Amino acid sequence: MHYELYYWPTIQGRGEFVRLALEEAKASYVDVARQSKSGVPAMMKMMQARTGTPSFAPPFLKAGSLMIGQTANILLYLGDRHGLAPKTEAGRLWVHELQLTIADLVQEVHDTHHPIGTLLYYEDQKSAAKLRAAAFRKERMPKYCGYFERLIEGGGPFVTGRKLTYADLSLFQIVEGLRYAFPKSMKKFERKIPGLVALHDRIAERPSIAAYLASDRRIPFNEDGIFRHYKALDK
Amino acid sequence: MHYELYYWPTIQGRGEFVRLALEEAKASYVDVARQSKSGVPAMMKMMQARTGTPSFAPPFLKAGSLMIGQTANILLYLGDRHGLAPKTEAGRLWVHELQLTIADLVQEVHDTHHPIGTLLYYEDQKSAAKLRAAAFRKERMPKYCGYFERLIEGGGPFVTGRKLTYADLSLFQIVEGLRYAFPKSMKKFERKIPGLVALHDRIAERPSIAAYLASDRRIPFNEDGIFRHYKALDK
Repeated sequence: MHYELYYWPTIQGRGEFVRLALEEAKASYVDVARQSKSGVPAMMKMMQARTGTPSFAPPFLKAGSLMIGQTANILLYLGDRHGLAPKTEAGRLWVHELQLTIADLVQEVHDTHHPIGTLLYYEDQKSAAKLRAAAFRKERMPKYCGYFERLIEGGGPFVTGRKLTYADLSLFQIVEGLRYAFPKSMKKFERKIPGLVALHDRIAERPSIAAYLASDRRIPFNEDGIFRHYKALDK
Repeated sequence: MHYELYYWPTIQGRGEFVRLALEEAKASYVDVARQSKSGVPAMMKMMQARTGTPSFAPPFLKAGSLMIGQTANILLYLGDRHGLAPKTEAGRLWVHELQLTIADLVQEVHDTHHPIGTLLYYEDQKSAAKLRAAAFRKERMPKYCGYFERLIEGGGPFVTGRKLTYADLSLFQIVEGLRYAFPKSMKKFERKIPGLVALHDRIAERPSIAAYLASDRRIPFNEDGIFRHYKALDK
């Protein structure tokens, strides 16, 4: 199966969780909007379709005759096909639950710099962003990361136990992103989540992932993505 | 199968999307935390478990030996078992994608009254809430509802075509909730989403749902849930 990934071409964003799974699986795929200038207009047009299964927003994945949207849903599909999820129903649902909790965390990270809305610039909602980011750093980041840490401590080395799943790849990205967005906070906080940091390091060393991170397919973090570094939001 | 639903006992919240599916399916279930005062402490304790599959937050559903968390994940499970989703892979993924988009909308509704964080009271973030709610009413609500409207117009009478799925039950709840939270806005807006309103009415008339809505199992909307009516946030 050759896949077509549709996502914004200049950011990691939510698409990165899909890219990491495709890369770990050594899947054949093209990151469509990064290939030509017509990629983004084509993607926008697909979302306006009146037939088929148009997605509300990117990322979405073309897999043969399927067009699959929503990050966690794409990973549910890829997990089954590329050995990135258990085969049992109980195992599949558990990994998917974790991925949906990661999705909630990602949304909360996004809202640290856009608490009022996605249609305003960060600069126009900076005072609210400072408040929201402070609440995130003090309460939400420890709560989410503490949850995953506890799961890893209860088993490990991966979040669901002895086998790698797509949720582990996403947790790698969470640690990467939090380090980029909140370096001061994370420097202090990381000693409280040794299992999550060790999981991150283990993923980074996997041959497929290491090769991906060293390639130009990995877009650097920047201030258009989900994880943004604004000094005013870190402490 | 007899189910145990774990959710906050005094609000509709995210649990309502699960309750509606259980009711439509005429499933045998108990809403655990509504049965006794020890229900909430028991639920909190389960979330702190160091083994098994503890959820980050309610709702979660005990189904035999399975403990399933995350609203959309619970619906994925129930959909298969109670004929509330297609049997084909393509159909299952499409309904799940729509449910995840509904989940995103629900989060945005929540953030209209809690833009800074869940740990502060609404009253302590009211000015930010006014801005966020205005952006929601003007841009996000029309974008989300317009998306679902377009899908219904493209086929119907249900969102994925001729058959009812759990996503339709959730869209019923979206219309109910938006009417409660933003009555002025919705009064003007509803003529732009006739398909969604007709879908809502069709669901409300289904015997199982009508019986549920008339029972005391249906908790009234209130200002502790996701959909809250604050005059300052509606226009």
